[in-house]
Amino acid sequence: MIKRIDHIAVVVEDIEQALSLFRDTLGLELSHTETIPEQGVKIAFLPVGESEIELLEPLSADTSIAKFLAKRGEGMHHICLEVEDIDAALADLKEKGVRLINKTAVAGAHGRVAFIHPKSTHGVLIELLERSK
Amino acid sequence: MIKRIDHIAVVVEDIEQALSLFRDTLGLELSHTETIPEQGVKIAFLPVGESEIELLEPLSADTSIAKFLAKRGEGMHHICLEVEDIDAALADLKEKGVRLINKTAVAGAHGRVAFIHPKSTHGVLIELLERSK
Repeated sequence: MIKRIDHIAVVVEDIEQALSLFRDTLGLELSHTETIPEQGVKIAFLPVGESEIELLEPLSADTSIAKFLAKRGEGMHHICLEVEDIDAALADLKEKGVRLINKTAVAGAHGRVAFIHPKSTHGVLIELLERSK
Repeated sequence: MIKRIDHIAVVVEDIEQALSLFRDTLGLELSHTETIPEQGVKIAFLPVGESEIELLEPLSADTSIAKFLAKRGEGMHHICLEVEDIDAALADLKEKGVRLINKTAVAGAHGRVAFIHPKSTHGVLIELLERSK
């Protein structure tokens, strides 16, 4: 069902500042940044092997990313696992009693996504992604 | 400098219980488990693509893993990034003023490793690994 780790998302206060570590010090490549106004988030994409590290900066205080930052500080937010067929995966998880944040897949930047509730995943917020063909 | 994400480590209370999610529900393969008495930890290795998810269970209350669990609960603990040359990487980070937990590499299960302090990495505990040839 799961093919690979698509990305690890890290919440930061300020992407420019965080790039001084992740790009300039650790030497990761910055492929691009994206601002998604409807989600109130700016994202920096840093490929590493077959995965990416994504830096998430909240653009307003009422977003879930901003609330995470206020409560827990900067740090790892979620991991995203690529699946072949997200509808089949969600149907299977539902049948097995796993608590889902998104009961059906929603449109994401790179395909269709859904989050599993961390109460069902030992505290790890997991995003599933079926990449657009 | 960085080749790929070697693994993501997740602290759990009980590996057997956590496997019911990660192996039986999400369908990840369990390659093996290891007990490292001198570090007071049991580890389950679950390959996914070119990376692994590692589940860490503390074996005694005086370990850093047990303290993390008591303070923050189950969840993501660190990410491990594979580097080509860990001595060169550590020298470079030191020169750039990055705070290191291990100033020189120590022996790990799969090669030589060192941890960077999360105060220098926006709250993300990062392990560097140079794999044994």
